[in-house]
Amino acid sequence: MKISPAAEFAVRGALVLAEHYGDGPTTLDAICEARGLSKQYLVKIFASLARAGLVTPVRGKRGGYLLAREPGEINLLELIEAVEGPIAVNFCQHIPPRCEQSECALRTMWSDIQQFICSKLGSTTLGQCLEVGQTDPIRRAT
Amino acid sequence: MKISPAAEFAVRGALVLAEHYGDGPTTLDAICEARGLSKQYLVKIFASLARAGLVTPVRGKRGGYLLAREPGEINLLELIEAVEGPIAVNFCQHIPPRCEQSECALRTMWSDIQQFICSKLGSTTLGQCLEVGQTDPIRRAT
Repeated sequence: MKISPAAEFAVRGALVLAEHYGDGPTTLDAICEARGLSKQYLVKIFASLARAGLVTPVRGKRGGYLLAREPGEINLLELIEAVEGPIAVNFCQHIPPRCEQSECALRTMWSDIQQFICSKLGSTTLGQCLEVGQTDPIRRAT
Repeated sequence: MKISPAAEFAVRGALVLAEHYGDGPTTLDAICEARGLSKQYLVKIFASLARAGLVTPVRGKRGGYLLAREPGEINLLELIEAVEGPIAVNFCQHIPPRCEQSECALRTMWSDIQQFICSKLGSTTLGQCLEVGQTDPIRRAT
């Protein structure tokens, strides 16, 4: 029961763009340096975020990436689903469900868990994250 | 953000034992047939459940597996953690954390999500699942 590393890195990378919102494009190198992330990995993640319209690539010598909307207008659920696809905590929460059982106490429980997760992530924006001081570089423990 | 298939199958398999609680051992073949699960996969899962003391293997011609405690005394968190290890929804929720940042709005959010999941799973027993009629065979959609 965990978020994929790609989705976690998408959130961390987008937070760097949010920190620099209004300052012009930020390069992937700068994002990797700020958050201790692998560039090879981040290239794919940011391609997914760009396809989802959450970040905007800027070509050229001073190119990089911009956040496509204000930090307060981008929530974490959008970022995660852009790289992970729709959240489905288990088989029965897939769309369409990967389980045919219609009446199941487990399904209600999984549905509650899924709704809580989506609500939490969907109601948390990059802007809110910035406000509460989580913008220091995130370093993985050795 | 999903439960592992192993953990999901552990819950489904254990539910079959719960259905037959008091009737003697149930074979893995019978569990596989009831839930449409792969025996090769279930062998490993039930070995993990046995190591965790949640099921008891019974050798011999009429052997199989027994639930180690009453269905009302085994919760879903125990079953899932027996095959998946401690639940950690992301890097900062690992024990020890895989992120060094101490003050982080994201951490609080992840912590809330993790606590909700653990509370939900930990307060739901196999016995409760049986009571609400989710014991029909679970078939994967084609």
